[in-house]
Parts: sequence; C-alpha cells; structure tokens
Amino acid sequence: STLKLGMIPADGIGKEVIPCAQRVLEALGSAIPKPEFIPLLAGWEEFKKNGKALPEETIRVLKEECDGAMFGSVSSPSHKVQGYSSPIVALRKHLDLYANVRPVSSVSGIPGPKINMVIVRENTECLYIKKEEIHDSPQGKISFATRQISERASSRIGKMAFEIALRRAEERKVKNWEGWWEGPSKVTIVHKSNVLSVTDGLFRETVRKVKEMDERFKGVLMEEQLVDSMVYRMFREPEIFDVVVAPNLYGDIISDGAAALVGSLGLVPSINAGDDFVMGEPVHGSAPDIEGKGMANPIASIRSASLLLASMGYTTPAAKINTAVDSVLLQGKVLTPDLGGKSTTTEVTEEIIKRL
Amino acid sequence: STLKLGMIPADGIGKEVIPCAQRVLEALGSAIPKPEFIPLLAGWEEFKKNGKALPEETIRVLKEECDGAMFGSVSSPSHKVQGYSSPIVALRKHLDLYANVRPVSSVSGIPGPKINMVIVRENTECLYIKKEEIHDSPQGKISFATRQISERASSRIGKMAFEIALRRAEERKVKNWEGWWEGPSKVTIVHKSNVLSVTDGLFRETVRKVKEMDERFKGVLMEEQLVDSMVYRMFREPEIFDVVVAPNLYGDIISDGAAALVGSLGLVPSINAGDDFVMGEPVHGSAPDIEGKGMANPIASIRSASLLLASMGYTTPAAKINTAVDSVLLQGKVLTPDLGGKSTTTEVTEEIIKRL
Ligand SMILES: CC(C)[C@H](C(=O)O)[C@@H](O)C(=O)O
Ligand SMILES: CC(C)[C@H](C(=O)O)[C@@H](O)C(=O)O
Repeated sequence: STLKLGMIPADGIGKEVIPCAQRVLEALGSAIPKPEFIPLLAGWEEFKKNGKALPEETIRVLKEECDGAMFGSVSSPSHKVQGYSSPIVALRKHLDLYANVRPVSSVSGIPGPKINMVIVRENTECLYIKKEEIHDSPQGKISFATRQISERASSRIGKMAFEIALRRAEERKVKNWEGWWEGPSKVTIVHKSNVLSVTDGLFRETVRKVKEMDERFKGVLMEEQLVDSMVYRMFREPEIFDVVVAPNLYGDIISDGAAALVGSLGLVPSINAGDDFVMGEPVHGSAPDIEGKGMANPIASIRSASLLLASMGYTTPAAKINTAVDSVLLQGKVLTPDLGGKSTTTEVTEEIIKRL
Repeated sequence: STLKLGMIPADGIGKEVIPCAQRVLEALGSAIPKPEFIPLLAGWEEFKKNGKALPEETIRVLKEECDGAMFGSVSSPSHKVQGYSSPIVALRKHLDLYANVRPVSSVSGIPGPKINMVIVRENTECLYIKKEEIHDSPQGKISFATRQISERASSRIGKMAFEIALRRAEERKVKNWEGWWEGPSKVTIVHKSNVLSVTDGLFRETVRKVKEMDERFKGVLMEEQLVDSMVYRMFREPEIFDVVVAPNLYGDIISDGAAALVGSLGLVPSINAGDDFVMGEPVHGSAPDIEGKGMANPIASIRSASLLLASMGYTTPAAKINTAVDSVLLQGKVLTPDLGGKSTTTEVTEEIIKRL
C-alpha cells in the first residue's frame, strides 16, 4: 500500500520548506507505507498566473485521490484585488478541516521560557466566513463583516480540545514534563464575552457544556481567559497553559504569540484536521523578505509532517521525526538564521535526516 | 478656576487605584488649577445593586459638568446576564471618545526589552458596536456579530496616529531615546486584510490616504503588519515600533501584549480621547484575585492622570508626574508585588508624591 499525499507549497518560502518535509517523509523508509507525492497548485502567484488562487483541480485531487496533504504558505496582495481570496482559508472550508491544532513547546535543555501547550483553533467560522459588504454613506464608505459562532462548530472544537487534553494526560505519565505545569490536564477557553456576550458567550457556554456532558472529561480542569488577558498571561507565565481552545481569529493571534516564546515562527507546526482528512501546515507565512535565499527554517514543516503522520496513526515514525528535530535543536550547531545559526534550509534538513 | 474631574472607580482594584491618581493630582498644588473631584457610579457591582451598569446621571454629569474624567476598571459576569453591557464600552461611545491612546515604554536603566511605542486604538467601532444576534437552527444555536469599519472612523484615528508621530519626532529631538529605534518617526498600520479584505482593506487604505493627503505627514514612515505577525514581531523586536494604529479589537489585544513586555499591566496607562473630552483609564482590568488586598499597582492610574493633564495642555505638571514615577521604578525599592516588590498601593503612591 502507499500513502498518497497532496503537496501544496503555494508561495514564498512554502516552496522551499515543503520539499524538506517531503525528503524527511521519504527518509523514513519502511517505517511508513511508501509515500506518493502529488504536487498541487494554489496561492497568490498561481492567481497572478492563471486567475485562480485555488484551482478546482487541486480540491478535486485532494478529495478524491489523497490520504492527506501538506500546505506551505501564501502571500497576499498589498492592495485589494478583485476576485482574489486566500486559498488556505478556502481549503479549510472545502475539506471541512474544522480544527487547527498547533502544539507549541520549548525543547527541554534549551534555555528560555518553559512552554508545552497545544492551541486548538476553530478553523471554519468566526470572521473567516468572509461575509463582508461595503456601502457609501454621507460620511464616506462604511463596511461590515459578519462574525459567525455556532453551537455545532464550538461543540466539535471543544470536544477535540478535551480529547487532546486526555491524550496529553496519558503522555505525561510516560514522559518527563520537566519544569512544566504539574497539575492535571487543563483546557483554557479563550473568548471576549465581556464585549461579545452573544457570540463569545455561545462559544464559552458550548465548550463548558462539552465537559459537563461527557464523563470522560470529568478529571480535566477547565479555565477561561479573555483574549487580551490570554496574550498577557501567555507571556508572563506560559508554563501554566496546557490545551487552549479558541475561536478562529483569537487562535490565529495567540499562536503567533506562542511562537515568539519558543524563539521562532520557523519552529511551530500545525495540522488542519477534519473528521476524515488532515493537512499539515507550518504556522509561519510566506516570508517574502527571505524567499529564495535558502535561509528558511524547514523545522515547522517537518514537524507538521510528523503531526500529519501521528494523526493517521503512524505514531512511532512521527515520534522519530520529533526526536531527530529536538536533537538537532539541542545540539545547536546546525540552525537557520532565525535561530541565530548560519546553516541553510537544506543543511538543517539533512542534519535531521541523519538523526532519524 | 478649577478643574472638574469625574472620578469613576467602577469595580475591583479600580476602587483602590483611582483614589491614588486623585491624591497625586491633589499633590500637584498650584501647578494646575485646583481640581474638584466628582465621584460617579458605573460597573458590574453597580448593575447588581441598582440594575444599571452605566447610570444616566453619570453620563449627564460627565457631559455637562466635567472638564475630564478618570475611569478605573470593570468586572464582568461569568455567565451571560440579561441587560448587562460593559459600561466602559458604552462610555466611549456616548462621549465619542474615538481614540484609545496607550503609550508603552520601558524605563531607561531598568533591564528588559527596550520599548517606546504608542498604540493608537480605534475606540468606537469594529466588533465593539455590539450588534449581535442568535437563532435556532436544525444544527443548534447559531450566532452572529457585526464588525463595522468606516472611512470616517479610520480616517480620524489615522490622523491622530500621524499627529502623535509628529509630536514624538519633536520630543525625540530633546530627549535621549537610549537604545531605541533611531530612524524617523513611523506609523505601523495593523490589520488582517488577507482575510478581511473589505473591512480591514478599508481601514488600511483609509489610513494610507491620511498620509498621502496631508503634507505635514510626508516625513513620517508608514509600515504595515498583519495582526498575528504584529504580536510576533512585537515580542521579537519591540524596539522597531513607534506609533501603532489599529482597529479596536486588535488594539485591545496588542496593548496587553505590550504590557507584558514592560513587566506588568499595572504600569500601562491610557486615555480615551475625543475632540472635546478625555478620560484617563489604566489598561489593566479589575483583578478580582487581588482586590481589597492593598496590592494593586497604582502606577497605571497615576500615569493615566498624567496623560489626562497633558491632553488638557498641562504638559509641565504631567511630565513631573512621569519623572516621579520613573524615579520610583528606577530606584526599585518601593514596588508592588506585580513588579517583584513588597510595598502596598498606598506606599507606592506616597513614594511618588514625595518625588513630585
Ligand atoms: C494566511 C492567513 C489567512 C492564515 C490565517 O489567518 O489563518 C495564517 O495566518 C495562518 O495562521 O494559517
Ligand atoms: C473591559 C473591556 C471591555 C475593555 C476593552 O476590551 O476595551 C478592556 O479590556 C480595555 O482594554 O479597556
């Protein structure tokens, strides 16, 4: 059997780091079914070339032929462009990848804040439904966007968050969570219900209910943070967070903040997960400033490939990738410039492969 | 002549720190017109007592009798409560205090990240217009909030940002901006136009136009950051930011992040400013965990009083307050627990007054 993976590098450094993830997957050999990589198009550059940021063919192949996928990063225009719309947002919606799961952790042994949290970001609604309109008024233009929060989406993301908390509780029994929050597993609900009492009120009530209604989640602690306070607390005491569940936009903002705490956006992976499809995606953007220079950190993509494997049940090879990455970081000799090193994208990838 | 100031401590530690700001203003003696303080009601506790979070009398007195005001902080209910709505959001709207100006700076001589930025937050629209609705659907409840971005509001906040940048350019000629961004004044526009191309598109286009249309702003640099990237960059290289202009919610989140960088929310002041009224307000919340313990840091409120004075044209006494605060921080002996000290709210206030 083979593992059919759709590969969508898209724009900028996405085109440099997705091939690295591919090389690492190839290097796993017989630890996983032989991967077959299917290159697929999307992105701002694709839009400029062919007028479509997300070709129908890409969606079709993902849906009909692939077991999973990897997505790189997208650039965006510096002015509003008629007909252009972010392909990553569209993909999440088309494939109903309703959860964006973003683990952020420091590597034990490397100085810096101790952090080991998973951000579980709702991935289909909030302001990302992109219902916007604009009108003329006597005082100039006036525009509106609609933010949607539904019980259904909040409930399934809440359930995913509590399930991840349970899984982590198990993992903690075997691993040594050095210097980290010692209490039981915990889910922190992020919202802004002091302003958005209806929409964020529904989000928090629904997530609360997920816990109340399911016996399995009884032992998991539940806390709340207003989104502004969340950003503050995360920087002041990152070690107190375990699983954090948030509506789409808050999750987006929080995960970039968490990335700053571990030293670089180039380290933070994610998966876009639905009930029957998963797409790995580094949290960083297309980074036009370093594009084409061979300086991009491939680790976020490589770790995303590991998350993708784990989500498909290949937990042992997934762990192998993570161990290799951690050991390269811990050794601290072969690092890209974002981490203070002088190595190239390729050198880091090869160093990881060596340690698999 | 007198200075009539409405004092609204509201909830939690607001009731402890607003009196400190009052004491400092009193201690200025003849440097300002004799202040007359008018205590006014608002808040979650007031709602529980009398059914109104923002009594009409409070608005009336502010509008008809006061030259300015100070607001403390509000608590919020842990469940949706019919009829309750945040009084601070309502006050900003009622008095058309369209700008929330939040200077965040490190004190030169104290170790830590070098930061000296002003966040200029739009204060009347975005999701804060509180147009929300909820429906039943076959898949459960579904709710919507409307986010409003208008040319008018974006334009006036943009103008304020560029004017503040010009003012800072002047100040920099006299002061020594040790270890800080050496370039010309700069305005960073924060948005998320890669998702919200219409609303955040309008925000960024309008702010860009403010610069283009006004000769005075020619020498001010203009940059942009996506809100997620802004949070990341702020933590990685806070020294590169000067003036940051943002729609309401992004401004809220960014300023809490910036507060973490200077060591405590208890240090960061703000003013809510309109064309003819200004209200000082510490950026921190009501902090129920430390309420009534005499541990709250009064500095954010005291600095807010200084901003209020400066906005009224009393720049010399305003600067006097800031110098006294900085000297207490630099000495580092009389500090509240949030800064690692053991002193009380009152002791810190008295230490500041001693140095006026
Ligand atoms: C590119 C952008 C639309 C996207 C998002 O906001 O979701 C990105 O920031 C991310 O986090 O994947
Ligand atoms: C209390 C809350 C409504 C308020 C806001 O979000 O504006 C607060 O966080 C602030 O920053 O002043």
